[in-house]
Amino acid sequence: KAGWSDLDVRAVDTARVLAADAVQRTGNGHPGTAMSLAPVAYLLYQNVMRHDPADPAWLGRDRFVLSCGHSSLTQYVQLYLSGYGLELDDLKALRTWGSLTPGHPEVHHTKGIEITTGPLGSGLASAVGMAMAQRRQRGMLDPDAKAGESPFDHHVWVLASDGDLMEGVSSEACSLAGHQELGNLTVVYDANQISIEDDTDISFSEDVALRFQAYGWDVVDVDWRQSNDPAGTPDYTEDIDSLLAALEKSRRPGKRPTLVRLHTVIAWPAPSARGTGKAHGSALGDAEVAATKELLGFDPKKTFQVDRAVLAHTREVKKRGKAAHREWDKGYKAWRKGNPETAALLDRLVAGELPKDFAKALPVFEADPKGIATRAASGKVLSALGRVVPELWGGSADLAESNNTTMEGQSSFIPTSKQTAEWKGGPYGRTLHFGIRENGMGMILNGIALEGLTRPYGGTFLVFSDYMRPAVRLAALQQLPVTFVWTHDSIGLGEDGPTHQPVEQVASLRAIPQLDMVRPADANETAEAWAEILRRRRTAGLALSRQALPTIDRTTHAKASGVRKGAYVLVDGGRNGDEAPEVILIATGSEVTLALAAREKLEQARVRTRVVSMPCREWFEEQPRSYQSKVLPPEVKARVSVEAGVSMGWHDLVGDAGRCVSLEHFGASADGATLFREFGFTPEAVVKAAKDSL
Amino acid sequence: KAGWSDLDVRAVDTARVLAADAVQRTGNGHPGTAMSLAPVAYLLYQNVMRHDPADPAWLGRDRFVLSCGHSSLTQYVQLYLSGYGLELDDLKALRTWGSLTPGHPEVHHTKGIEITTGPLGSGLASAVGMAMAQRRQRGMLDPDAKAGESPFDHHVWVLASDGDLMEGVSSEACSLAGHQELGNLTVVYDANQISIEDDTDISFSEDVALRFQAYGWDVVDVDWRQSNDPAGTPDYTEDIDSLLAALEKSRRPGKRPTLVRLHTVIAWPAPSARGTGKAHGSALGDAEVAATKELLGFDPKKTFQVDRAVLAHTREVKKRGKAAHREWDKGYKAWRKGNPETAALLDRLVAGELPKDFAKALPVFEADPKGIATRAASGKVLSALGRVVPELWGGSADLAESNNTTMEGQSSFIPTSKQTAEWKGGPYGRTLHFGIRENGMGMILNGIALEGLTRPYGGTFLVFSDYMRPAVRLAALQQLPVTFVWTHDSIGLGEDGPTHQPVEQVASLRAIPQLDMVRPADANETAEAWAEILRRRRTAGLALSRQALPTIDRTTHAKASGVRKGAYVLVDGGRNGDEAPEVILIATGSEVTLALAAREKLEQARVRTRVVSMPCREWFEEQPRSYQSKVLPPEVKARVSVEAGVSMGWHDLVGDAGRCVSLEHFGASADGATLFREFGFTPEAVVKAAKDSL
Repeated sequence: KAGWSDLDVRAVDTARVLAADAVQRTGNGHPGTAMSLAPVAYLLYQNVMRHDPADPAWLGRDRFVLSCGHSSLTQYVQLYLSGYGLELDDLKALRTWGSLTPGHPEVHHTKGIEITTGPLGSGLASAVGMAMAQRRQRGMLDPDAKAGESPFDHHVWVLASDGDLMEGVSSEACSLAGHQELGNLTVVYDANQISIEDDTDISFSEDVALRFQAYGWDVVDVDWRQSNDPAGTPDYTEDIDSLLAALEKSRRPGKRPTLVRLHTVIAWPAPSARGTGKAHGSALGDAEVAATKELLGFDPKKTFQVDRAVLAHTREVKKRGKAAHREWDKGYKAWRKGNPETAALLDRLVAGELPKDFAKALPVFEADPKGIATRAASGKVLSALGRVVPELWGGSADLAESNNTTMEGQSSFIPTSKQTAEWKGGPYGRTLHFGIRENGMGMILNGIALEGLTRPYGGTFLVFSDYMRPAVRLAALQQLPVTFVWTHDSIGLGEDGPTHQPVEQVASLRAIPQLDMVRPADANETAEAWAEILRRRRTAGLALSRQALPTIDRTTHAKASGVRKGAYVLVDGGRNGDEAPEVILIATGSEVTLALAAREKLEQARVRTRVVSMPCREWFEEQPRSYQSKVLPPEVKARVSVEAGVSMGWHDLVGDAGRCVSLEHFGASADGATLFREFGFTPEAVVKAAKDSL
Repeated sequence: KAGWSDLDVRAVDTARVLAADAVQRTGNGHPGTAMSLAPVAYLLYQNVMRHDPADPAWLGRDRFVLSCGHSSLTQYVQLYLSGYGLELDDLKALRTWGSLTPGHPEVHHTKGIEITTGPLGSGLASAVGMAMAQRRQRGMLDPDAKAGESPFDHHVWVLASDGDLMEGVSSEACSLAGHQELGNLTVVYDANQISIEDDTDISFSEDVALRFQAYGWDVVDVDWRQSNDPAGTPDYTEDIDSLLAALEKSRRPGKRPTLVRLHTVIAWPAPSARGTGKAHGSALGDAEVAATKELLGFDPKKTFQVDRAVLAHTREVKKRGKAAHREWDKGYKAWRKGNPETAALLDRLVAGELPKDFAKALPVFEADPKGIATRAASGKVLSALGRVVPELWGGSADLAESNNTTMEGQSSFIPTSKQTAEWKGGPYGRTLHFGIRENGMGMILNGIALEGLTRPYGGTFLVFSDYMRPAVRLAALQQLPVTFVWTHDSIGLGEDGPTHQPVEQVASLRAIPQLDMVRPADANETAEAWAEILRRRRTAGLALSRQALPTIDRTTHAKASGVRKGAYVLVDGGRNGDEAPEVILIATGSEVTLALAAREKLEQARVRTRVVSMPCREWFEEQPRSYQSKVLPPEVKARVSVEAGVSMGWHDLVGDAGRCVSLEHFGASADGATLFREFGFTPEAVVKAAKDSL
């Protein structure tokens, strides 16, 4: 039993009134859910979650994910009441320039916010990633402790809405959560039956409980609309004790995630707005706010009214948090003492540092005109890194062998009972299997990164980056160190045809701010790319070839370490490759080889030709102007970009005199060599473009 | 009972052998599923579906969707056996340049292919759209006929794989299919437990039957692995009669879609390959193909062996199809006679023509410095078009009021029992409710367009075009006349913050080939944009503002009909706007007003400034060079693009001397006016850029 006092009840009502006031003051926002979920959020922050407002980064804290991010006030008000640093002025500044209380919660912006949410389904799906990461981290640090007894055991709590459950990405992630037996995950599904088009019956009549049972979840129904509690309003009683019982049960060690389907009335208890669609996304209006205040015994003339006693009471959670933290510290210190090496690892992970000399483990590939696919090189690099960078882990959306995402010798992250003939592993394994669920994979990778200790990656075909674009954007927006491994990066993949051939994907991913797109030209560039991605700790995407690419001879060409600067002169003009160029060929990935072949012909025609390999435009743009001018001297106007995709984005580098060898239409089904030839990716075509440019 | 003769059995085995041979010959492809699903596909084409190989466009035909598009041979072989025009040479040319048998089925490329599939989940989700369109079309043409007795009644049949069911988009669409009570939809789910990572147990252990029951589907299990038929192989018997019974039952008029979960063994009966992951996506090898042939009584030394009697037998389906077509014609003719006006409508729809003078219905908006949001203008335009263009219909992914996608006076497309207080309608209604399922919406719109008679549209926020990008790409690839209504098209949307503010979306959508992105500047451009989109019958996306935009005075500025050419001179240089410009400001959408304001300042500073409104780059690029040069004279190098998004894609138009007023980072939570100011979208900033450019 929660055993709430009158002060607790008053605090919950205060949360409702603050939410209504904040939206009313700003003039827009989402009051309804913040009002009806106030008791739920209060229960979590005051009675259920293990957290310490004084240390939002505490390793032992539970995680809270507000998947219905539009209801940001649900969380902001609790952060205020709990003493995370938000004050009334912050609530008054809701949704205004520079405030700590933006429209949707933003991680790294407001203390106590674990994740940026808003796009529906994303928070819930990323929470699955957090729960997976918790298990993996525990497995790395403290595998032998009993369930619930490790300092690295914590629980992930989610508030989700109808909209979260309609989005396909939540189906993907929740199916996987059931499969992975994530007993450390509890989702409170706020079944208020209201979305922007009002009654959800207009589009959503599935049986959510049955659906989650199908996924292997425990499902508990708590219905506040039908309580017989004589003390409550006849048709609605916020039965906190039933909810608390469900939550407490769900946190016990077990093999199933829990969905608590909580039937609520949106905007409860606002007398006219409750249960209406309008209460979802609009200010209630002065009259309705006043009426609500009267109903709850607040002064309708005052705004942002908080009784001193209420705040003093709610902020006692800081003491409880401190005590819990102190208690945890005992176990943590004992663990450190007993596990000095692992503790050193943990310190490194917390600091976000890589192992010293990790890059020495990288394979070096011999020059080879036949070469290997960059996806294959990536696989070898990952296997090498896997041995020295234990925080690195990942997998594929059912394309492990195609994406070369499996690190050699690493077992699968899978309940022991679900191993297959092909894949052996256990709950603490390292190879992830996402199934054919790209967006779910992306969101899960984000959640893993947000847990904070490991470096996750996930693979699929580049064309299917489209499926996971919402997750990629959120990774970039949150500046998460997630690496997307996208193979089969052009028409070079061949016979699978236009549905599988990326044409516009590299350009359209480059358009995403804060995302580094890296398209290495050969095996050694691939190794350098991985190392640089790990060093930078930013969101990165790798575009890797299906087909073999020659391994460039680095005795006659520049070293692959140029990758670190995003672009470098691979070979310069003249017979010996050391003369100032008349024309510059700028190429990425598989087209670097093509540019080199074109350069041969141009040199034969006595055109001094520089080839620039440009695996990552974003890294190049970070370089000092002086380096940029060295690679692309402003006086050399004759320039040709060579990339097997749309030319969008290349004109700024090639300029008015330049030409783009590009592909402005969808692909076709035939072998890759034929497609390159038929679509104009030949040395002759590059030579012609270079001559046109001169 | 199917009552198959020995010839039928031989034909099925022929299909298996042809599939194995075709992949073996090409050296790559997907033989396994084509082999194990051969009896299923044969049953559909020979015994179940209403179709006429001589007329693949027959209005009365059932639709077949191969959602597991990688198994294209499943369909190609049946098209060959049924006599759709494919011959053995086409099968031999599998996955080669220019063939009729590309890696994945492509609509408009191979006769008898209804839809391009390959990206998993997409076919199944679009099939839901076909089933919805069938109901709507029947409602438009023949609403009073009894169930199953209209010429416009037909059934949609889908073959789907494990992968289709893992993808979130199938969850979205199938939940909606149950909600919509689509009794005209049958999905055969090939539960072979194999995907690329081998046994699907590694990532997929949900109870699919329970999940579909939760969606409101009928679920039938047919397990060929456990038959006790003494005539069959002990552990596997292809019990065609059970399958047929399930299919026949599912086609009876009813209120539930049907999922037939068919447990199969992939690559059956190949002696070593069956049931293995390798059989999914690799050629079986000569030895295994030979062994399979021996097992089935084929000459292992021959390839592409088809008994003359088999082909003669299977092609009798043409006769049956012709007879069914003739029978149907009777009812169809009677319908035409009884409904001459509707028949005229149908003829127009089949011809793909718009009503004459439809554009006269478009509203004209008076000049107004306050103006209205282009989303609001779009709503008014749609309402006007709705009255004269009956084939136009659409809705929103739960944002009807925000997207302004509801045509005035049109009822909802919804089972009568599922109307809500807010939305009234019935099974033949016209307003679609997709729920918060953007990708599902997109795929459904594609399916509606593929059915062929109507013009669908669907709305969400522009930033969530990311969620539906796979569907948008497939629409463009298939050249479907679908219109995506994307509102809240920039930081101008304000307080919802960076998760909701599109920055890179317009550019990244422009990168998709065959997609027209249209961003009108005011209400009148919005009207012209809609009309032009309808005329062109291509895939189009509209980017519309949340905030009010001034309605430009067309007596002092050029007419909005310039929209049809994609870009036009809105006003030229000089005090009277008729002098040759020194600088050109190129703007789209809400930034056109900003460009006009900047022009005022530039003219005051005696800089002759032309403003070009460029709502659609794709349409502009189609214009003759002479028109393009008139709008953007090559001699005027001083150019500034003004668009509240990334500059990617603008450098080719503004050139080396040009400048871009753009946004290269994510947005923030504040009111729109503040964001424009803080992020440099001011007349002063545009003036500065113009002066820099001069």
